[in-house]
Amino acid sequence: MIVLGIDPGTASTGFGVVESAADRLRVLEHGVIETAAKLPLERRLAAIHARIGDLLDGYAPDALAIEELHFGANARTAFAVGQARGVVLLAAGQRSVPSRSYTPQQVKGAVCGHGGASKDQVARMVARLLGLSSAPRTDHAADALAVAICDASRAPLMEALSGSLKPKAASL
Amino acid sequence: MIVLGIDPGTASTGFGVVESAADRLRVLEHGVIETAAKLPLERRLAAIHARIGDLLDGYAPDALAIEELHFGANARTAFAVGQARGVVLLAAGQRSVPSRSYTPQQVKGAVCGHGGASKDQVARMVARLLGLSSAPRTDHAADALAVAICDASRAPLMEALSGSLKPKAASL
Repeated sequence: MIVLGIDPGTASTGFGVVESAADRLRVLEHGVIETAAKLPLERRLAAIHARIGDLLDGYAPDALAIEELHFGANARTAFAVGQARGVVLLAAGQRSVPSRSYTPQQVKGAVCGHGGASKDQVARMVARLLGLSSAPRTDHAADALAVAICDASRAPLMEALSGSLKPKAASL
Repeated sequence: MIVLGIDPGTASTGFGVVESAADRLRVLEHGVIETAAKLPLERRLAAIHARIGDLLDGYAPDALAIEELHFGANARTAFAVGQARGVVLLAAGQRSVPSRSYTPQQVKGAVCGHGGASKDQVARMVARLLGLSSAPRTDHAADALAVAICDASRAPLMEALSGSLKPKAASL
């Protein structure tokens, strides 16, 4: 049996390919996938994904083994959301689509005019800004539309600002 | 400009495709990617990744927009590790390679005989079990090899147990 063991991390992901046969263990390959901190997150995730894919294709392991980490309630949510966010950013990174992040306050501010807006207010404003006859069916879709609106309204401004102000900004 | 907004989550990932032109916003598509709780995590991540990929390919957005969540120190680590773990599990899920998770205590127990072993003890035992002339160069590689060893040593036992004991276990 061949097992691919993984110690995941954005900067350094450890890997080890171990073969077991008749109570003997043998390492086929091991090492660390290191990604440069200067790269955007989605590029770093794409690099990890590509190398793990190569290892899976090259050794055809029977299983991938990974540590299960236990966190408190708040961190548990962060961990779960992180996993979903990772594959989303990956999909963008694989296609060289830039990813831009906004805090909940920025999103609410862009959509509702103030960072303390409620979920309901966000959903209603999303429907209004997009000319929908009613608010999106779920909070998730409304939140996704809200962050898209935030980006659509801010990105041109940010680009204009960075274009015209970059020389000044650099001297701050 | 077209922006794909995402509200990530394992069970429900919201998405919204918004087009902006001349101060007008228009929604091209929005909805929720829902994954079944009964599916293994790597299958759920693969489903999210595939659907996001379809949206990126179909609408060719100029950017992906996603909320940046802020957590405390402990949760921040969980979030970052979660993102890397997500793409690792995805790579396995895309190839139908089963993923098995072990707690740090299980890994240390399998490699060192007790769950409270130090990182140094784990690295030394990994080298010894695999017949390496010295401990792996980094903790990450040592940890990855340790979880692979844990799986290689436990999986046959687990399979044997589940095969012979399933009827009994079900009646416990």
